[in-house]
Amino acid sequence: MSKVGIIMGSTSDLPVMQEAIDILKGFDIEVEVDIVSAHRTPEKLFDYGKNAHERGFSVIIAGAGGAAHLPGMIASLSPLPVIGVPVKSRNSIDGWDSVLSILQMPGGVPVATVALDGAKNAGILAAQIIGASDKCVLDKILVYKEGLKQKVIKGAEEVKNR
Amino acid sequence: MSKVGIIMGSTSDLPVMQEAIDILKGFDIEVEVDIVSAHRTPEKLFDYGKNAHERGFSVIIAGAGGAAHLPGMIASLSPLPVIGVPVKSRNSIDGWDSVLSILQMPGGVPVATVALDGAKNAGILAAQIIGASDKCVLDKILVYKEGLKQKVIKGAEEVKNR
Amino acid sequence: MSKVGIIMGSTSDLPVMQEAIDILKGFDIEVEVDIVSAHRTPEKLFDYGKNAHERGFSVIIAGAGGAAHLPGMIASLSPLPVIGVPVKSRNSIDGWDSVLSILQMPGGVPVATVALDGAKNAGILAAQIIGASDKCVLDKILVYKEGLKQKVIKGAEEVKNR
Amino acid sequence: MSKVGIIMGSTSDLPVMQEAIDILKGFDIEVEVDIVSAHRTPEKLFDYGKNAHERGFSVIIAGAGGAAHLPGMIASLSPLPVIGVPVKSRNSIDGWDSVLSILQMPGGVPVATVALDGAKNAGILAAQIIGASDKCVLDKILVYKEGLKQKVIKGAEEVKNR
Amino acid sequence: MSKVGIIMGSTSDLPVMQEAIDILKGFDIEVEVDIVSAHRTPEKLFDYGKNAHERGFSVIIAGAGGAAHLPGMIASLSPLPVIGVPVKSRNSIDGWDSVLSILQMPGGVPVATVALDGAKNAGILAAQIIGASDKCVLDKILVYKEGLKQKVIKGAEEVKNR
Amino acid sequence: MSKVGIIMGSTSDLPVMQEAIDILKGFDIEVEVDIVSAHRTPEKLFDYGKNAHERGFSVIIAGAGGAAHLPGMIASLSPLPVIGVPVKSRNSIDGWDSVLSILQMPGGVPVATVALDGAKNAGILAAQIIGASDKCVLDKILVYKEGLKQKVIKGAEEVKNR
Amino acid sequence: MSKVGIIMGSTSDLPVMQEAIDILKGFDIEVEVDIVSAHRTPEKLFDYGKNAHERGFSVIIAGAGGAAHLPGMIASLSPLPVIGVPVKSRNSIDGWDSVLSILQMPGGVPVATVALDGAKNAGILAAQIIGASDKCVLDKILVYKEGLKQKVIKGAEEVKNR
Amino acid sequence: MSKVGIIMGSTSDLPVMQEAIDILKGFDIEVEVDIVSAHRTPEKLFDYGKNAHERGFSVIIAGAGGAAHLPGMIASLSPLPVIGVPVKSRNSIDGWDSVLSILQMPGGVPVATVALDGAKNAGILAAQIIGASDKCVLDKILVYKEGLKQKVIKGAEEVKNR
Repeated sequence: MSKVGIIMGSTSDLPVMQEAIDILKGFDIEVEVDIVSAHRTPEKLFDYGKNAHERGFSVIIAGAGGAAHLPGMIASLSPLPVIGVPVKSRNSIDGWDSVLSILQMPGGVPVATVALDGAKNAGILAAQIIGASDKCVLDKILVYKEGLKQKVIKGAEEVKNR
Repeated sequence: MSKVGIIMGSTSDLPVMQEAIDILKGFDIEVEVDIVSAHRTPEKLFDYGKNAHERGFSVIIAGAGGAAHLPGMIASLSPLPVIGVPVKSRNSIDGWDSVLSILQMPGGVPVATVALDGAKNAGILAAQIIGASDKCVLDKILVYKEGLKQKVIKGAEEVKNR
Repeated sequence: MSKVGIIMGSTSDLPVMQEAIDILKGFDIEVEVDIVSAHRTPEKLFDYGKNAHERGFSVIIAGAGGAAHLPGMIASLSPLPVIGVPVKSRNSIDGWDSVLSILQMPGGVPVATVALDGAKNAGILAAQIIGASDKCVLDKILVYKEGLKQKVIKGAEEVKNR
Repeated sequence: MSKVGIIMGSTSDLPVMQEAIDILKGFDIEVEVDIVSAHRTPEKLFDYGKNAHERGFSVIIAGAGGAAHLPGMIASLSPLPVIGVPVKSRNSIDGWDSVLSILQMPGGVPVATVALDGAKNAGILAAQIIGASDKCVLDKILVYKEGLKQKVIKGAEEVKNR
Repeated sequence: MSKVGIIMGSTSDLPVMQEAIDILKGFDIEVEVDIVSAHRTPEKLFDYGKNAHERGFSVIIAGAGGAAHLPGMIASLSPLPVIGVPVKSRNSIDGWDSVLSILQMPGGVPVATVALDGAKNAGILAAQIIGASDKCVLDKILVYKEGLKQKVIKGAEEVKNR
Repeated sequence: MSKVGIIMGSTSDLPVMQEAIDILKGFDIEVEVDIVSAHRTPEKLFDYGKNAHERGFSVIIAGAGGAAHLPGMIASLSPLPVIGVPVKSRNSIDGWDSVLSILQMPGGVPVATVALDGAKNAGILAAQIIGASDKCVLDKILVYKEGLKQKVIKGAEEVKNR
Repeated sequence: MSKVGIIMGSTSDLPVMQEAIDILKGFDIEVEVDIVSAHRTPEKLFDYGKNAHERGFSVIIAGAGGAAHLPGMIASLSPLPVIGVPVKSRNSIDGWDSVLSILQMPGGVPVATVALDGAKNAGILAAQIIGASDKCVLDKILVYKEGLKQKVIKGAEEVKNR
Repeated sequence: MSKVGIIMGSTSDLPVMQEAIDILKGFDIEVEVDIVSAHRTPEKLFDYGKNAHERGFSVIIAGAGGAAHLPGMIASLSPLPVIGVPVKSRNSIDGWDSVLSILQMPGGVPVATVALDGAKNAGILAAQIIGASDKCVLDKILVYKEGLKQKVIKGAEEVKNR
C-alpha cells in the first residue's frame, strides 16, 4: 500500500505541516513523519533521499522556510515525486525566500510546489498522486471535493438568509 | 496505460510547453496536447476538467501566463493531480503574475507548481507521478537522473582540462 | 431598474465585501449577494457567469484572495462589466497574489480592478457605471463627491484650529 | 449616443493606447482622443475632468506611466467611470510604479484599473460599461466573445493536426 | 522670512506628519499646516498649488499614502521645491504604492522624496533648503548634526560600559 | 552666486547624470562636476562632504547605483541639501537596490531622492531650491513649466489632427 | 590572538546584534563592541575603518538597517573582511532596503552579507574566517556543527514518539 | 599555503565565475575550479563539502542561480567559510530567486553572500579572508584598494578636462 513521507527542516515547522498529516490520515493514507534538516543533518538528508523509493514511499512532502533547500535536495536524491511546502518561518522575508528557493528548481529536478504555508494542499496533492493509479483514493478525492462544494453552498445560504 | 494531458491557454505558449511534450515522449509516455483557454473557451475548460479522469489521463499539465487561471480551474474541476507551468508571457510583469496566480491556490484545491517557464520539469514531474506506481517508469527516471549526473561530470572534466 | 451582483469566494471575504454592499445601498441601488467559489463550486460559477446578463444585473462585483480566479472567470463567462476586488486573505503574500491574479487579465477579457481590499470603491464604481446612463444615479455620485470634499474641509478646519 | 474619452499623459503613450481606440471603433463606439498631462497641463486636466460628464462622455479611459496620476486625478474631478491603463513607460520600474499609482486609489475615488499596457481591455471594458444599459452594444460584446472562442478552437485544431 | 507649507491628504496622516512640524518649529521656521486632498478637494489642491509661491512659502512638504498623488500634483502646479513624504497608510501594500507614486515623477516635474513615513527628514530637508541661502539656518543645521553625533557617542559609551 | 555640485560614483554614471548638467546650464546656473566614489575614494568623499558648504555650493546632486552610498554619505557630512539620483547601473537588480539605498535614509539625515535615472529632475529640483530664495531663478522655473505645457498642447493638436 | 570588531549604527540594533556577541563568546573569541553611525558619526566611521586592521581585528561585523551604509563604508575603508548584517529596523520596508543596500556592493569592495537579522550567522561566519587559519577554532566549528545535528536528531525523536 | 575552491552548479555559470578566478590569480592565490551540482551530482556535493577542509582549502566560493542550493549545502557540510555568488541565470526571476536562496540561510549555517553576479567581489572577499591571517595578502589588498582609488581619480580628471 502507498505511504507518504512527510519531512520538515525543524520542529518549528510542525504546526504548519500538521495540516498535511491530518488531511492524509483523513484519506486513510499512511504517513511517516520525520525531521530532516538539509543544513544541520546533511547525512540524514542524504540517506533519506537516496532510499525513500526503496522504503515504500510513493510521494514525499517536504516543508521548509527561508533559504529552503530541503525539498530541492530530496528531489535531487530521489526519483519519487517531491511536494515542497514553503513555510513562512520567523526570519523569512514575507515568505518570498521560502517560495523562490523551493519553486525555481533547475531543469531536470522538479519540486511540486504548493502555496506558502499550504501544507493542507500538499496533503491533498499527495493523495491525488496516489489516486492517479488507485481508483479507491480517486473516489475519496471526488467525495472530498463534493464536501468542499457543499460547505460553500451552505455558506451561501447563510449569507442570503442574513 | 498512463496518459498525460498537456494543455495551454494559447498557441503562443507552445514554444515553452513543447519541452514538456518532448521529455514525456522521451520517457515513452503518451501525451495529448490541446489548447484550452480559461478566459476564451470556458465551456471547453469545463468539459475538459470534468471528464479528464474518465478519459484515461493520470496527470494534467496546464501552462498559462499573466493572470493564469487555467491550472487552478482545471484543478477545481478534476480530481487528478494538476501540474501548473507559469509562462512568462509577453505582457506578464516579469513573470510574477503567472507564478502567483498559479501557486497561491486556496486550501482544498492544490496545483503542483513548477518554475517559471519550467515545462521540462512539469514533464519530469508527470513522469515521476506515473512512476510512483509504475516500476518501469520509476526506473527510467533513475536512468534519466544518472544521465544528468554524467553530463555534469563531463562538464567538470572539460573545465578542469582547460 | 439596475441591479448589482456582489459575489465572493468565501464567507471569510464578507467583512471586506460588506463595504460594497453598504455603499450601493446608500445609493439606493439594488444588490444581490452570493458566495460563488471558482475553485469549490465551479458549476455554480459557470451558471452564475453565463446567466447574469439575463437575470437583470448591470454590473458584477467579485471579491477573492490569493490565487483569485473568481473575477476573471466571471469576466470570461459574462458580457457584463466585472469589477474585481483583491482581498488580502489570510495566506496571501501581502496581497500581491490577489492583486496580480485579478489585474493581469489577457487581452479580450478585462476585469475592472480596484485597490487591495477596496470593496468600497468597487461599490462606487458600480454606481458610476450605472450612472453612465442614469442621470439620477450620476447626480447622487456628484452629491457623494461633494460630501467627501466637505469632510476634508471640515478636517482641515480642525487641524488649523488645534 | 455614448462617447468614450481616451486621454493619455504623453504622445509617447499613443502606441499602447491605440489598441483602445481600435477596439472601440470596431464596436462602432465614438471616441475622442486627447493628450492631457496631469503634471504638465494641470489646467487642462482640471477642465477636462470637471466637464467631461457634460460633454457627452459616458466613460473616460486614461493611460499613463511611472508616477501615473492622470487616471486618479480625472476620477477625482469627474463623476464618470474612469478606466486606468498603467503604461510601462521608458523609465518605469518594470511597470510596478504605473500599476500601483493607478490601482491603489483611496476609498471614495475608484479607478477601474486594467493590466499593464492593457489598453485593448480598457476599450472592451468601456464597451461593456456602455453595454450595461445598451442592448445593442451588449450583443456586440457577445459576438466579440464568440469570436475569441472560435479563434482558440481553430488554434487548437492546428496544434492537434501538427 | 521663509515659511514652509505642510499639507497632507487626510487628518489620518497627521500623526506621521507631526514630526515635520515639530522639527521645523525646533529650527524656529514658520510652518502652516493644512489638509489638501488631491482626490477629494481637487479645487483646493489647484488653488494651493497655483498660489503657494505668491503666499510666501519657500518650500512645500506634502504627505500622502497609497496612490499618493498630492505631492506630484502640487509639484505640477507650483514652481517651488516640493518634498514628498510617502505615508504607509492603512490599505497601502507595505508602503510600495506610496513610495512609487511619489518618487517616480516624469521628467520635468520633480518631487524631493524622503523615506517611507520620513516626515522628520522632510522637515530637516526643508530647513536645509532654506539654509542654502540663509546662513543662520545653515548654522542651526550644523548644530543639529553635532547633536546627532553626540547622542550616538553617548550611546556608544553606554554600550561599552555595560 | 549659487553653484551646484554634481558628483557621481563612476564615469559610467555620466551618460545618466549629463541631463542634470544640461538642465542647470539651461537655467544659467553654475555647476561643478566631479567623480567621487564612496567605496573607492572615501577620503575624497570625506573632504568633499565636509567642505562643500564652504566652497560656495548651495546644493549637491549625487548619483550612484547598486548599493548606492554616495548621496547618503554626502548628506551625512554636509549641512547642504543633497539630491540623490538612483542610477540603474549594469548589475543593479532592476534599480531597486539603487532606489532603496538612497531613499530610505534614517531620521536626521535626509536625501532628496528623485526617480530612477531621474537626473533631469535632480537638476530642476536644484534650480527650484535656488529659486526658493532667488526670484530670478524662480521666474525661469515658471517659464520652463510653461514650455512643458506648450509642448503637450502642441502634441495634443497633432494627435487630434491625425 | 584574533579579535572581532562588532559595530552597529544605533543602540536600537543591539538586541539583534547581541546574538553575534554571544556566539563569538561561546567560541572564546574576543569581541569589541561599538556604536558607529555612518550617517551621524562619519568621522568615527572614518577612523574606525582606516585603523581597524592595525588595531588587531581580524574581521569586522557591521549591522545596520534601512539605507544601511555602515557595512559598505567600513569595507571601503578597511582591507579586512567585513560581514554585513541587514537589520529589519522600525521604518525599513520589510527589510528589503537593509538587504539590498548591504548586499549589492560594486565590484572591488565586497561585504559578506548574511540573512536579514542574521547576527548569529555573522558571528559563526567570523569564527569560520578565523578558523580558516586557526585549527583550534576550526575544531570548535566542527563541534558546533555536530551540536546542531544532535539537536535536530533529538527533535526528530520527539516528533516520532508523539 | 592557502588555496581557494571555486565551484559552480553548471558550466553555464563559468563566464560569471571567471571573474573570481582572475582576481584571485592576480593576488597569486591558488584556486581549484570544479563543477559541482547540488541537484544533479549530490554525491559529489557531499564528498566535496565533507572533505574540503582536509584538502587544504581555506575558503570555498560557490556560484549558482535560480533555486540556488549549492552554497548553502556546502556550508552545511563544511566548517570552512563559504562565499555564495548568486548568478542571474537564464530562467531566474530577475535574480531574486538566486539572491534569496543563498542569502537567507537559517541560524547556524552562514553563507557569506555577495552581490548578484558578484564573482569578482567573491574573489576579493576570499583574499581578504586569507589576508586576515596573512600579512602578505593583506598588503596586496591594500595595494589593490589604492589602485581602485587611482582609477577613480584619473576618471575624475578626465571628466573635469572635458
